[in-house]
Amino acid sequence: MYKGSARAYTNIALIKYWGKKNEELILPMNNSLSLTLDAFYTETSVTFEPNQTADHFVLDGVVQDEKATKKISRFLDLAREKAQVNWGAVVESRNFVPTAAGLASSASGLAALATASNAALNLGLDDRGLSRLARRGSGSACRSLFPGFVEWEQGEDDETSFAQQIPSNDWEQDLAMLFVLINDQQKDVSSRDGMRRTVATSSFYPGWLASVPTDLAHAKSAIATQDFTALGEVTEANGLKMHATTLGAVPPFTYWSPDSLVAMNLVRQLRQIGLECYFTMDAGPNVKVLCQRKDEDALKQALSQHFAPERLILAHAGYGATVI
Amino acid sequence: MYKGSARAYTNIALIKYWGKKNEELILPMNNSLSLTLDAFYTETSVTFEPNQTADHFVLDGVVQDEKATKKISRFLDLAREKAQVNWGAVVESRNFVPTAAGLASSASGLAALATASNAALNLGLDDRGLSRLARRGSGSACRSLFPGFVEWEQGEDDETSFAQQIPSNDWEQDLAMLFVLINDQQKDVSSRDGMRRTVATSSFYPGWLASVPTDLAHAKSAIATQDFTALGEVTEANGLKMHATTLGAVPPFTYWSPDSLVAMNLVRQLRQIGLECYFTMDAGPNVKVLCQRKDEDALKQALSQHFAPERLILAHAGYGATVI
Repeated sequence: MYKGSARAYTNIALIKYWGKKNEELILPMNNSLSLTLDAFYTETSVTFEPNQTADHFVLDGVVQDEKATKKISRFLDLAREKAQVNWGAVVESRNFVPTAAGLASSASGLAALATASNAALNLGLDDRGLSRLARRGSGSACRSLFPGFVEWEQGEDDETSFAQQIPSNDWEQDLAMLFVLINDQQKDVSSRDGMRRTVATSSFYPGWLASVPTDLAHAKSAIATQDFTALGEVTEANGLKMHATTLGAVPPFTYWSPDSLVAMNLVRQLRQIGLECYFTMDAGPNVKVLCQRKDEDALKQALSQHFAPERLILAHAGYGATVI
Repeated sequence: MYKGSARAYTNIALIKYWGKKNEELILPMNNSLSLTLDAFYTETSVTFEPNQTADHFVLDGVVQDEKATKKISRFLDLAREKAQVNWGAVVESRNFVPTAAGLASSASGLAALATASNAALNLGLDDRGLSRLARRGSGSACRSLFPGFVEWEQGEDDETSFAQQIPSNDWEQDLAMLFVLINDQQKDVSSRDGMRRTVATSSFYPGWLASVPTDLAHAKSAIATQDFTALGEVTEANGLKMHATTLGAVPPFTYWSPDSLVAMNLVRQLRQIGLECYFTMDAGPNVKVLCQRKDEDALKQALSQHFAPERLILAHAGYGATVI
């Protein structure tokens, strides 16, 4: 029995990962910077069986179809290659999400699977090696290995593209992020497809890339000096730029829904009356609002006047991935 | 008595004017292309009085304050300079707008004032000269001198920057534009300030400028071949790009309100069910929907399920500015 189990937490990028320079190795076009959060996490166990060849994938108690299993198999192949085995595996994964409202993410899932595989096959990967392995499963998963603020160094090849924690003197403990879950019937463009179309066709992709190093430097400087205003401003500006690139794609598209704009406008208004908070968005309509922990109750109260309480999920600093 | 009166119609850009290379002469950073519409118009009379020095400006029956009058005076100075006089003037202007809901535009106003001034002072300006004069009052006014499709050639100096009609075999008569008036309590960024901030700071302004010549060529080709799909697609894409540039400004801003996104989503949905229409937006939350005249009733009907009838204004091809 070669079995391993692990837990990993979600992360939200403050400086966004948006576009790949290598689709197979999942090498990004720019460095990104995230905050690991306790909002939800994934627990995964993987059991390799020397006498089996097929893989089985059970997610939240449901046996997954061929397509979903194939994706997992491709990832397991990387671990099997390192261990020089060709054993089939059973992967059992469970997402711990406050509500079922579309807050799934591949980041915690693949970070947990990488950590579990490392344990199951005794690969002996260190943090960097685990981050590189998780990256192959899902780009942003490489950041979910670590707690606090995490930077994903884009690197130039499989060896040099990995994430690591940024020293912060635990400042993240003073921060919070409120997830505003937005209902949307629109058919989404996946982040993978959205990135690809943007990189290939957007008039604004070069401008995006050119602006990231400055944003990243501002974010890191803000973390070093614990300057919440500076971190919030660059987070909001960088997120808006990421979303602007989709409007210049051919054909153009957007992840925003009307309620996303309602939430963004509320954040701006709250700032004007002295409640300091900043929004960011990813490849979907949800809005994530960064605030200081001292203001989290007031923020949630203010937003609950426009969004039902079950649509507001408060998150704090999460943990690095661990074997369980 | 040196008096002249004129009427001029509004125009909506399909390829947007967004940014100046010379603020004083109002020379734009890129060519733009518009459709002149009958949705609303301005009638203006100007009377120069040799024994007076002060200017007076009456808009919709209301005597305007010093600030508004000063703007008019600066424009009249250009006409006075051409006539080599320094007479004061009384300007009476009336906007004919279907509702009072924020559909004001300086384009029809300044085009009418330029035409009226030309008549009052016997300046003898031809179409090109009038377009150049109107441009000095408000950039987009230079397009409102003409009916149908109009291109504003950016030019390099005061002499070479003017608009002219694009031959279309009257195709514009087959088209319509539905204005969706969006209520918004947000304090707007004026188009002048928005342009300035975007040109000076947006990561995306170079990408915008680089993409306009291709969009313009596509639009002109679509007009030449009366290809509605091609014209609609480039109109919608170009408008989205203009709005994307504001998200990359420092600080970022947007003209979109939640209901703007509702209208944009409806247009996309209508297209999917075979009602061909395309949206564009300017420096405010209103959405303008381009369609073929044969579809205008169905379009208005469909949108009236989400927007009150008084917020939907149907427009058709308008006329060139005329002395009245």
